[in-house]
Amino acid sequence: MDDAPNSGRTIYYGAFVHCKSLQELDICESGAIGVGEDGKIAFIERGVSDIGLDGVKQTYDWGNAEEVRVNDEGFFFPGFIDTHIHASQYPNAGIFGKSTLLDWLNTYTFPLEGSLGDLERARLVYDRVVSRTLSNGTTAAAYYATIHVPATNLLADICLSKGQRGFIGRVCMNSLAPDYYRDASVDSVIADTRATMSHIADIDPKHDLVAPIITPRFAPSCTEDCLHALGALHKESGARCQTHISENKPEVALVCELFPKSASYADVYDSAGLLTAKTILAHAVHLSDEEKSLIKYRESKISHCPASNTALTSGCARVRDMLDRGITVGLGTDVSGGFSPSILEMARQAIWVSRHVAMTEGDQAKLSVEEVLYLATRGGAKVVGLEDRIGGFEVGMDWDAQMISLGKVSSDDMNLDTEGPVDVFGWESWDDKVAKWMFNGNDRNVSAVWVKGRLVHRRKSYKG
Amino acid sequence: MDDAPNSGRTIYYGAFVHCKSLQELDICESGAIGVGEDGKIAFIERGVSDIGLDGVKQTYDWGNAEEVRVNDEGFFFPGFIDTHIHASQYPNAGIFGKSTLLDWLNTYTFPLEGSLGDLERARLVYDRVVSRTLSNGTTAAAYYATIHVPATNLLADICLSKGQRGFIGRVCMNSLAPDYYRDASVDSVIADTRATMSHIADIDPKHDLVAPIITPRFAPSCTEDCLHALGALHKESGARCQTHISENKPEVALVCELFPKSASYADVYDSAGLLTAKTILAHAVHLSDEEKSLIKYRESKISHCPASNTALTSGCARVRDMLDRGITVGLGTDVSGGFSPSILEMARQAIWVSRHVAMTEGDQAKLSVEEVLYLATRGGAKVVGLEDRIGGFEVGMDWDAQMISLGKVSSDDMNLDTEGPVDVFGWESWDDKVAKWMFNGNDRNVSAVWVKGRLVHRRKSYKG
Repeated sequence: MDDAPNSGRTIYYGAFVHCKSLQELDICESGAIGVGEDGKIAFIERGVSDIGLDGVKQTYDWGNAEEVRVNDEGFFFPGFIDTHIHASQYPNAGIFGKSTLLDWLNTYTFPLEGSLGDLERARLVYDRVVSRTLSNGTTAAAYYATIHVPATNLLADICLSKGQRGFIGRVCMNSLAPDYYRDASVDSVIADTRATMSHIADIDPKHDLVAPIITPRFAPSCTEDCLHALGALHKESGARCQTHISENKPEVALVCELFPKSASYADVYDSAGLLTAKTILAHAVHLSDEEKSLIKYRESKISHCPASNTALTSGCARVRDMLDRGITVGLGTDVSGGFSPSILEMARQAIWVSRHVAMTEGDQAKLSVEEVLYLATRGGAKVVGLEDRIGGFEVGMDWDAQMISLGKVSSDDMNLDTEGPVDVFGWESWDDKVAKWMFNGNDRNVSAVWVKGRLVHRRKSYKG
Repeated sequence: MDDAPNSGRTIYYGAFVHCKSLQELDICESGAIGVGEDGKIAFIERGVSDIGLDGVKQTYDWGNAEEVRVNDEGFFFPGFIDTHIHASQYPNAGIFGKSTLLDWLNTYTFPLEGSLGDLERARLVYDRVVSRTLSNGTTAAAYYATIHVPATNLLADICLSKGQRGFIGRVCMNSLAPDYYRDASVDSVIADTRATMSHIADIDPKHDLVAPIITPRFAPSCTEDCLHALGALHKESGARCQTHISENKPEVALVCELFPKSASYADVYDSAGLLTAKTILAHAVHLSDEEKSLIKYRESKISHCPASNTALTSGCARVRDMLDRGITVGLGTDVSGGFSPSILEMARQAIWVSRHVAMTEGDQAKLSVEEVLYLATRGGAKVVGLEDRIGGFEVGMDWDAQMISLGKVSSDDMNLDTEGPVDVFGWESWDDKVAKWMFNGNDRNVSAVWVKGRLVHRRKSYKG
């Protein structure tokens, strides 16, 4: 088959960068990664500048493989994982005024989410949010949709069709919600959640790309029996679960008031069977030590949403402390509490938040470039339970990757339109180039994106 | 002359937005601004959708004026003013690791600045930084260059030739600097500063675009006699002055140690004659009440540099407090303590810093969208002493402006390459559109930029 013109194999040639550990980037300046027709990494070769692409082909007898080369200033990087994003809120990105969580929900959020019962409107929004996140290098996302089954199913369809990995959450909320936007009963919560699970099982039976995720909005939006019913469904189905925890202080106080028998916010979820190793908890800003211990014990995962926490004045999550405790942390855009659909922007925001913590609690709080890139990839993969398949470049893992191109400054007045926002002068080290990309890069640097080996986004300038 | 084919007059037609006051945006959905051949605003018409562009031409007898129309989702906005940027540090944007001010200077900054003694290298850097800031809508900037006279003069030449307003500062530093990068003596500080002033007087005698600015790096970099000599030059020449103040705590302690006779950091400058109404002070993070009172009394201006203050863990400037005291504040990128050359990004960063202050000191600290846009335009104009000419749209002011284009989401899968990062769905209010631009906009939304009526930047997609 190696001589066949269309082998379905591809060799990605040039520099690649990924995270070896929380503290360490693996930068290979001259590499080759072979990806089979199953979308999995078949081999990784390092230091191939001597033998060249032809040498690599010969070594592996992959003579007819397709070739994808990254330019001299660029590199391949694992796709980003957005562990918390409200697809339905995307039209409100940047619209939050001076509000904080609880008034923000009523003023901006519920009216928009409620309006997505209109399927055409939902299609406009979901088409765009999936395209937009893909264009920012997000290859997997844990999505909140709305309470509406048809619109939520549509989001699953769109992810599948555009090729993005999606955890699709129909939002469950039968309490403290406006009349125009709430679940009618616990029974309907469960029936509607099952309806979406069933649709997703129909369109992607093995959950290769899309999977359902059980989504109690947050404790104040659900009655105790609703949470317990969702906990039972979580156990029965084995589907993952996502919710919010301890985002701002008035919310924490509200949870204490609504659930007086519970020892803590975390305990509300725990006693309902919703705090498990398959649970993603967004925010985790104001957790007590006891709650952190419980979360660590249950092996639940944290989605750190720095942009949102700053924008809504929620507070600063103590990421260093959670990492030191061995809690798994990834990054979430939390659109539209967060203003941006870009996980690269979140990596920056995580650094800023860590700096603000450091201002009062000391230098150990600071997160490094390496650490936030880890959270954006390997950390996120652990949060969504796919650490064996995505988040890094290892033989046997899926090719979920982005090609990053950087601009080289020359004495000609190069056109700023076509180049991205990162200016490489030529004397930078590779570490410096990665840092420059991390702090100033955006979707213009994302030339192409692959999920399971399928090209799912490319810029016009990309020549595959 | 109105019938002549090339009258040099232009009518800018469509929506425009600018700041009326610190709290209030003026949004005109359908306007026309006439700009004469002198680059000044000759008239402003509002609510012109009825009479149309032809009606406006007729009203003013400007039949042969050129026309520039902004698209339906876009608007004209005043050019941004960057009140503090180290042009020489631009190649290090994003490279700072976990450092803080004093080690950052020695590790990253002095080696780069020192290398710009090489004029070809300086040309590469300065060409790019001026193009890059223009492309981000910055029509005026207060630049730090380096100690080198030829390279500093080159920066002035480049600003003049590209059409950006530049305050050009030769950096003065005769103390606590490395051997390879320091001024030899107070005499040479003054002689070299005069040399740059003289060059700028030659190339732009009326300082229409470029002007010199006296630039003691910061108190620790200058001996007391050096500061006094620069204070005398400031008084004699009438040139503006810029420096840093109270950026981080170890720096403040160092100043106390170096200037034991001075009552405060601000007093060091004041007693040298450097604290005047023509002085720009960058940072102002850790000022005492007494220093704020002194600065207010002297009418010195503050450049708030939120990105840098966060990145280098310097602290949070209390902008609300300074505004309440009647101190004039603008925004500075402080490249490369700040990672980004964009003042729009600084407007966002100012909001984030204000949120972090609000987390501990209360909601009144929060800055609004309107307020940070004011700081980016009118505030900055006051900081550089040009409030009568730039920063807003008023008859008689110069046409320093940017055309902002936003993308309209449609049911077609619109190409994300050509549209910018701001997605307008069509149901947003004008306030919402401005907020969306403020939080997600970048240079891709800047279709064109004018300074004094001259087109100084345009994107390929711009059709003038």
